[in-house]
Amino acid sequence: MNSQTAIRAVPEVAASEKDMANAIRALAMDAVQKANSGHPGMPMGMADVATVLFSRFINIDPGKSDWPDRDRFVLSAGHGSMLQYALHYLLGYADMPIDQLKAFRQLGSRTAGHPEHGHALGIETTTGPLGQGISTAVGMALAERMLAARHGADIVDHYTYVIAGDGCLQEGISHEAIDLAGHLKLNRLIVFWDDNSISIDGPTSLSTSMDQLARFKAAGWNVQKVDGHDMEAVAAAIETARQSDRPSLIACRTLIGKGAPNLQGSEKTHGAPLGDAEIAATRDNIGWPHASFEIPDAVLSAWREVAVRGQAARQAWERRLASSPQRLAFEQAIGAELPGTVFDALAAFRKTHVEQATKVATRKASEMALGVINDATDLTVGGSADLTGSNLTITKGMGTVAPGDYAGRYIHYGIREHGMAAAMNGIALHGGFIPYGGTFLCFADYARGAMRLSALMGQRVIYVMTHDSIGLGEDGPTHQPIEHLAMLRATPNLNVFRPADIVETAECWELALKSADRPSVLVLSRQNLPMLSQAHEDALPSGCGAYVLREPEGPRQVTLIATGSEVEIAVAAAERLHAEHGIAAAVVSMPCWELFEEQSPAYRKEVLGTAPRIAVEAAARHGWDRWIGDNGTFIGMTGFGASAPAPDLYRHFNITPEAVVEAARKLI
Amino acid sequence: MNSQTAIRAVPEVAASEKDMANAIRALAMDAVQKANSGHPGMPMGMADVATVLFSRFINIDPGKSDWPDRDRFVLSAGHGSMLQYALHYLLGYADMPIDQLKAFRQLGSRTAGHPEHGHALGIETTTGPLGQGISTAVGMALAERMLAARHGADIVDHYTYVIAGDGCLQEGISHEAIDLAGHLKLNRLIVFWDDNSISIDGPTSLSTSMDQLARFKAAGWNVQKVDGHDMEAVAAAIETARQSDRPSLIACRTLIGKGAPNLQGSEKTHGAPLGDAEIAATRDNIGWPHASFEIPDAVLSAWREVAVRGQAARQAWERRLASSPQRLAFEQAIGAELPGTVFDALAAFRKTHVEQATKVATRKASEMALGVINDATDLTVGGSADLTGSNLTITKGMGTVAPGDYAGRYIHYGIREHGMAAAMNGIALHGGFIPYGGTFLCFADYARGAMRLSALMGQRVIYVMTHDSIGLGEDGPTHQPIEHLAMLRATPNLNVFRPADIVETAECWELALKSADRPSVLVLSRQNLPMLSQAHEDALPSGCGAYVLREPEGPRQVTLIATGSEVEIAVAAAERLHAEHGIAAAVVSMPCWELFEEQSPAYRKEVLGTAPRIAVEAAARHGWDRWIGDNGTFIGMTGFGASAPAPDLYRHFNITPEAVVEAARKLI
Repeated sequence: MNSQTAIRAVPEVAASEKDMANAIRALAMDAVQKANSGHPGMPMGMADVATVLFSRFINIDPGKSDWPDRDRFVLSAGHGSMLQYALHYLLGYADMPIDQLKAFRQLGSRTAGHPEHGHALGIETTTGPLGQGISTAVGMALAERMLAARHGADIVDHYTYVIAGDGCLQEGISHEAIDLAGHLKLNRLIVFWDDNSISIDGPTSLSTSMDQLARFKAAGWNVQKVDGHDMEAVAAAIETARQSDRPSLIACRTLIGKGAPNLQGSEKTHGAPLGDAEIAATRDNIGWPHASFEIPDAVLSAWREVAVRGQAARQAWERRLASSPQRLAFEQAIGAELPGTVFDALAAFRKTHVEQATKVATRKASEMALGVINDATDLTVGGSADLTGSNLTITKGMGTVAPGDYAGRYIHYGIREHGMAAAMNGIALHGGFIPYGGTFLCFADYARGAMRLSALMGQRVIYVMTHDSIGLGEDGPTHQPIEHLAMLRATPNLNVFRPADIVETAECWELALKSADRPSVLVLSRQNLPMLSQAHEDALPSGCGAYVLREPEGPRQVTLIATGSEVEIAVAAAERLHAEHGIAAAVVSMPCWELFEEQSPAYRKEVLGTAPRIAVEAAARHGWDRWIGDNGTFIGMTGFGASAPAPDLYRHFNITPEAVVEAARKLI
Repeated sequence: MNSQTAIRAVPEVAASEKDMANAIRALAMDAVQKANSGHPGMPMGMADVATVLFSRFINIDPGKSDWPDRDRFVLSAGHGSMLQYALHYLLGYADMPIDQLKAFRQLGSRTAGHPEHGHALGIETTTGPLGQGISTAVGMALAERMLAARHGADIVDHYTYVIAGDGCLQEGISHEAIDLAGHLKLNRLIVFWDDNSISIDGPTSLSTSMDQLARFKAAGWNVQKVDGHDMEAVAAAIETARQSDRPSLIACRTLIGKGAPNLQGSEKTHGAPLGDAEIAATRDNIGWPHASFEIPDAVLSAWREVAVRGQAARQAWERRLASSPQRLAFEQAIGAELPGTVFDALAAFRKTHVEQATKVATRKASEMALGVINDATDLTVGGSADLTGSNLTITKGMGTVAPGDYAGRYIHYGIREHGMAAAMNGIALHGGFIPYGGTFLCFADYARGAMRLSALMGQRVIYVMTHDSIGLGEDGPTHQPIEHLAMLRATPNLNVFRPADIVETAECWELALKSADRPSVLVLSRQNLPMLSQAHEDALPSGCGAYVLREPEGPRQVTLIATGSEVEIAVAAAERLHAEHGIAAAVVSMPCWELFEEQSPAYRKEVLGTAPRIAVEAAARHGWDRWIGDNGTFIGMTGFGASAPAPDLYRHFNITPEAVVEAARKLI
């Protein structure tokens, strides 16, 4: 168990790697101490594994951290962020000087509490919420195989390495991820499990008796177990894993806080500074006489050599790409720039259907729009969490991704909403594709953790969420979303689209595709909806978030605001208000609150008008007061739904044109 | 694979059981056909297993469906609800006459699309969202062991049986549940896996290669595999499972839609009616000449005998209870009625701390209140998803639940928020305990699916969610809730409490304990908060949802509304407005929106006042327009958080007394 035993066997190489690992330990404990906040235990425990991985295997180039064929490194145990920041400093990332480590967890520093994608170079994904990293990595490893299938091993040929902790493996999402990875034989995925038998509450034996190796083996993984402080054993395991035809788990038996003489092996090193005395004792214990944040030149040079190896690999790759017949196609894919023909085709599609007054469910409209989109570009990659025939997410000729066969464009994600969302994050982060995936809106609940990360990372992931209200009917309240629109709309940096007809659906698809810096959710009906748009427009009215769909002849007496399937109800109510009561009602369709919020106050005022307002949405009121104002009325759900045919439910819950008419007459 | 082979071996008994199973098949296919909606495949596939289970093993009494020591049956594959309704009709549940089956999935019927607890007698838990049933059952099986440890096997001695499908086992939550159950050796839990190799998209081989038996074995389960149409094999497996010292999985190889000659084995039977022709062919094929919804007397009698056996078991149990020295204690536990001493002690606690002006984080205040509560009653059972030292959910002398030792009151749920929430649902549904469990508020995301079911089922489950805002500081945006309060407040039938000091925290705990018909979420700060309450009151001001904490001397010029840690900011702003600008500002503390919404309009008007309003909450604005009105101002978060010490973050995001003062001056 003592790393020094192994090190003595091959002194020249190992002595240097031992120092390299101790540099990580020292930086981690010193930075956490200075911040008086953070997690030293994991970086110290996994320093040996990380050193072997980076010094001997990983191909990354700190000078060009977004080189497409680089290996991906994911710190799934994100609380050990100082491992990553120490590595980045040691490897010479330009944005990670020692001062950044000294500013660990301080306002404005790049060294955030948990690694954040986009916050510092080379952070492949945001981690911290446990289990997300390993699950996102599955998407990266899948994207790599899919891109290789399209452009060849000469230019796409890299590994995805993950460090995961006990927490990652206990979280349910890990089950979805490893099952999918094992099934699809994602053999470029190599996961190191920091098997230190410690979680926050104490020994892991307080809460689990899982045989993780047997578990991963059951999921079709190659599994190995090593002493995580035996560098040669770790290296041999990585070699073996790289040759496997399956994804690999390497269980690394480690001591948390390794090196701290009095605290190693204890949960006390997990999430708190070691304290000055123990840090001094650790320096003695590991033979690290250097001052805080000081790394000797020899150690730094050893680390910088790793970067040189990566640079050479990157340059060799660039030469291969330059002479590859795939060059243009690859660059277009990696740029993920959609050709204008996609949007031309969507415009023609909208024109055709408004003229034909096509009446379909918006989930069906989405399928039809996807047919156009998927024909016009290869960038889109679809899927569903085992609801393909309900979400209508597959289109003709996509081809299915299958174990060992990655040429297709459609992924059967299985009954795994959370795993799907995380995999889509990984696909988007990897580059080369625009992922979309379907489930019922209600099961956004299951995917929440990863959906939030889509938003936090600003990734173009498109969620196709059908069966969006009581309109789904008989499946009942467990399947009927009530609070879900509020949950999604309250999430920052996420566009939530709820289109009212096939034209708006195509517009919302276009807006989602063009939103390269954020995820989108398309919220779609199960039931048929009539054509409400009245004429073709080149501009996208949905792009303003809300717009006046029906303006009455005289001055407005009431404004009816609705989304999705309830716009039909608002239009019917407006017609009856006019015909039966001589009341002038405008109808506003509001497919996207977020985009409406971004419009000018003048535009918003114009759309909302000064007349009293009524909102109609078959969901919770929460949030609607923003638009209806002090004297407004909301017509929607006040509790959970029920099981019955959809028309019965709309009547039962009083979400009808009659109810709107009555509310309008009361209001004015 | 043909069930008739086994049946021929023991003709008298088995012939009858074959008919009993076919009765389920017929009722399921007929009811789905009549509703033109539903899932016939699972009930037909699992009819043989269900018949063996109910006819030979399960102890339930349809005449007294809530008898505490009954076996629990959970249909985790809830889409197969017709299996349960058919069983209930056949067993003679008074609320399930044949007319209910004829009204399957219709408005007002008890035969909802998915089984709903409280909707019909004997439905132990609401299922439909996949994986919830099996995970809730873990809580039931744990509660059984815990109750048995307290009151003895003489009066607590029952099994929890689960039918789960491929979907249940693919969902991540199943991993959390089976790991916990295996670890705790919950040997009264027996799960039948409907191993039919079919999911909605087609064969399960489209998305999984999991060796489920190896997986469950890795989690410490007893595993068996049988032909699910071989009734004797199923019975033998159940016998073996009942003797195991571990939870048991019985993989039942079945044909989905078994009996339908042209469709069995196909995903086409999963979620759609078979059609009249195939139903007629099925009648021929299984030898069931009876008309739709008609069950011959002989078959019905055979089923009713099962109920008689259950009735006898119940009566024997009642005799044992009547003569047990544990009787009183058991009845108090099962009634879950809290003694008044709990609330007396909480009142004294509040009085002491308001007098001492105790300044603590509300998570600490919660721990202190829990100390009082847990001393005064044994009903509470606590736990945390591996954040015990952060959530502060354990109190002195609780004792820990451990494998084979169920005398303790504290559960180390592991890093399993979703599994914890579902287990708490199961504990509450089982009866005998009031469960509470902790995690960070941000990780409500992970538990959403089960939390929604707490609300839908109206169960007294108490979520202790700490680290409730940017106030958690350095961990950064992945750990800082923004949209979570909106997500929870938008959920029907859920009380969300965000107390401002130790007094409000104790009040909110009392309100949560008294809310027997709904779950509660206690949203608590990491950081210290001052005493804001000014004098002891016997009544609970928090019980009104919101109340005036500070009324200015003159007429109000502005009303500041805040919750939790931001009430301190509002109070400081009010003092400065008065002292520096002579502005009369009231401060409203609003710990619970839901309870405030339930007050009279007059009370609400009085609290909110007519002066302009400013709300302060370190979270998303979404929903706040309800309280601030058209001319109000919101001071809070507009995007994700950041990693830094908490005071820096409050300044950075401009959630400060200065910002409130400035907004107030602008507003008036």
